[in-house]
Amino acid sequence: MPESHLADTVARIAPPGDDPDHAAATAAADERWRTRAKPPGSLGRLEPLAAHVAGVTGTCPPAVPRRPAVVVFAGDHGVVADGASAWAGEVTAAMVRTMAAGRAAVNAFAATVGAHVVLVDVGVDGDLSELPGVVHDKVRAGTASLAAGPAMTRDEALAAVDVGLRHAATLAADGSDLLVGGDMGIGNTTASTVLVAHAVRARPADALALVGRGAGVTGDGFDRKRAIVADAVERVAGLHDPVDVLAAVGGLEIAALAGFHLGAVAAGVPVIVDGLISCAALCVADALAPGTAGRVIAGHRSTEPAAAAALAHLGLEPLLDLDLRLGEGTGAVLAVPLVQAACRALGDLAELPDPRSS
Amino acid sequence: MPESHLADTVARIAPPGDDPDHAAATAAADERWRTRAKPPGSLGRLEPLAAHVAGVTGTCPPAVPRRPAVVVFAGDHGVVADGASAWAGEVTAAMVRTMAAGRAAVNAFAATVGAHVVLVDVGVDGDLSELPGVVHDKVRAGTASLAAGPAMTRDEALAAVDVGLRHAATLAADGSDLLVGGDMGIGNTTASTVLVAHAVRARPADALALVGRGAGVTGDGFDRKRAIVADAVERVAGLHDPVDVLAAVGGLEIAALAGFHLGAVAAGVPVIVDGLISCAALCVADALAPGTAGRVIAGHRSTEPAAAAALAHLGLEPLLDLDLRLGEGTGAVLAVPLVQAACRALGDLAELPDPRSS
Repeated sequence: MPESHLADTVARIAPPGDDPDHAAATAAADERWRTRAKPPGSLGRLEPLAAHVAGVTGTCPPAVPRRPAVVVFAGDHGVVADGASAWAGEVTAAMVRTMAAGRAAVNAFAATVGAHVVLVDVGVDGDLSELPGVVHDKVRAGTASLAAGPAMTRDEALAAVDVGLRHAATLAADGSDLLVGGDMGIGNTTASTVLVAHAVRARPADALALVGRGAGVTGDGFDRKRAIVADAVERVAGLHDPVDVLAAVGGLEIAALAGFHLGAVAAGVPVIVDGLISCAALCVADALAPGTAGRVIAGHRSTEPAAAAALAHLGLEPLLDLDLRLGEGTGAVLAVPLVQAACRALGDLAELPDPRSS
Repeated sequence: MPESHLADTVARIAPPGDDPDHAAATAAADERWRTRAKPPGSLGRLEPLAAHVAGVTGTCPPAVPRRPAVVVFAGDHGVVADGASAWAGEVTAAMVRTMAAGRAAVNAFAATVGAHVVLVDVGVDGDLSELPGVVHDKVRAGTASLAAGPAMTRDEALAAVDVGLRHAATLAADGSDLLVGGDMGIGNTTASTVLVAHAVRARPADALALVGRGAGVTGDGFDRKRAIVADAVERVAGLHDPVDVLAAVGGLEIAALAGFHLGAVAAGVPVIVDGLISCAALCVADALAPGTAGRVIAGHRSTEPAAAAALAHLGLEPLLDLDLRLGEGTGAVLAVPLVQAACRALGDLAELPDPRSS
C-alpha cells in the first residue's frame, strides 16, 4: 500500500505557520543571535540558516550535525533512446559502478565533509545486483520514453517515492542528522525540466527557455531535447495530481528524491537540496505536501536554467553559486560545512561582552 | 632590517606568466579535468580552483590540504577616538580574549573545518601579555588616528609587515598547507576603506561610495566615518610607495596581513583571502609584489562596498557570497572545504569510463 505510506508522511508535514515548536525554536534562535559577541547580522545568511535548523529540529541552539549522509538514487530514462542526451544510457550503470568504487565526484566531496554515502538502484537499466555497496530497490529497469507516452505507471511512481521515503526514515532513525539527496541518471535533466515547467505553469513555448544543455548536449541533440520538452509540457499540462505528473514524466530516481525530501522533512531532519534534479523532485514534493520547500535548505544554484526557475518558484535562495551542473548531490554536499558552521556558531559564541569589563 | 626581509620575500614572487612550474602544473590540471568521469566543465568553479592550487604548489594533482591554519592579527586604531566606529576600542582586546577562550565565530568555523587557530597581538591597545594562546608580537599599542596625521611610522609599518611574513613562513615550514589570514581591530573598516580607495585611485568624492557601515555605525557616526575617509583619501593621494601609504593609514593588523599574504605566496602555500580588511591588505601586498593577487584564492564577498571594489581591482571572484561582514577570517575559513573538495576530486576521480565496457 505505497499510497497510504505517502499519505501518512504528508500528514506529518504541518503547513508553515502551523507548527508552534518550529516557530518557538526559530524565534529563540533569532534572539540568541542578537546577544552573541559580534555585530548584529554580521554572519549574514548563516544566521537564518542556523535558525532554520533550530526550527526544523525544534531545538535552540540546534545540535551541530555530526553525521551527514548523502543518498544517491540512480535510474535510467527511456527518452535517452530518442537522442535527448549527450551520453549513452549505459553511462548511468557505469557511473554507479564508479561511485561504488569511491571514485566519483560525490565520493570525493562526501569524504571531504565527512558524509556517509548510500547508493540506491531504484531504476537502472542494467543488472547491478552483484555490486557491493549498492542498495537494490529497483522498481523498474528504466522508464519508458516520456516522448512516446507515460514514463511509468502510477503504481511504479508511488513505489519509487516509497523507496525515497524509506531511506530518509531509516537514516533518520539510525542517527543521521543532516541529509542530502543526489541523483544519477543519464537523461534526467530532460525529465526534470518538464517537471519544473509544469510546476511553474510554463507554456510549451516558454518552457524552451528552461531547457539547458544537461551533461553537454549540443547541436541536433539540443534541438531534439528542446522539442521533446515542449511536447511533453503540452501533454502533461492538464494533469494536476503530482503523482500522475511524476508517472507521465519520470524518472524513477526523481520520484525517489521526492519521497526522500518528504521523508526528511517529516522526520524533522535538516535536508539540503541539490541542483536541477533535486529541485524538480522538490517541486513534486511541495505539491504533495505544501510547505515542504520551506523546510529544506537550498544547497546551490545549478547552471541549468530550470533549476533557477524551480528555486524561485519554491521561494528558495541557495547557499552556493559555483557554476556546478554535475548532479550526484555534489553541490548540496559542499554546503554541509556551512550548515555545521552556522549551528556551531549559534551554540558556541560568547554572549556580547561588556566593553567596561575588559 | 625589516625592509630587507620584505625585499627578499618580494623577490621570490615571480610575476604571472614568468613561472614555468606554475604554468606547467596548471596546464596539467586542466588536462586532467578533461579526462575525468564527468561532463567537461560540470564542476564549475571548482575546476579552476584545483588548477590554481596545482599552480601555486607546482604539483598536479595537488595534494589535498589537510592542515589548514587561520592566523588572526589584532590591532587597535586611533581613529576610533574620533567616533568613526559603532564600538569602543576596548572591544578589540575583549574580542581577543573571547577568541583565546575559543568562543568567537572564527573559533566555531575553524573547528568545523578542522583549521588550527593562531592569535597574534600585533598592535592591541591593552596588555594581553598574560593571556594564554596569544602570540605577543606587539609593534605598538594601537595606531595614532589617521584623521590627524600618519597612523604610524614607516619603520612600524615595516615591522608589522614583518610579523605577518614570519607567521606565514613559520606555518609553511611547520607543514600548514592552506592558510587564512584574519583580523580583529575596532575601526579597521575605516582604514581599510582608505587603503582600497587609494588602490583603485578613487577621488575623495568617489571614495564616499566605498564607505560601509562596518560593525554597524549609523547616523552621525556614519557621517563622521565618511568625512574621515574622504579627508584621508585626499591626504594620501600623493603617496606612491605602498609602505608609506600603509604607515599613513594603518593599521598594524592590516600591515601584518599584507605580510602574511606575501609570505604565503612566496612559500608556495595556497592562501584564502577574507573580507574587506584582508582585501585591503592584499591591495598593499599586490602593490609591493605585482602578481600576488593572482596567486591567492578569494574566499568570500563581504557586504562592505570597498571589499567588492578591491576584489574587482585585483581581478578576483570570490567563492562565497553569504552577506558576511564580520572579519576574523570567518568568510575565508568557510571556503576551506571547497578548496579541499576541489583538490580531492581532481586527484581521486576515475578516468572517463568507456560506455562500451559497462
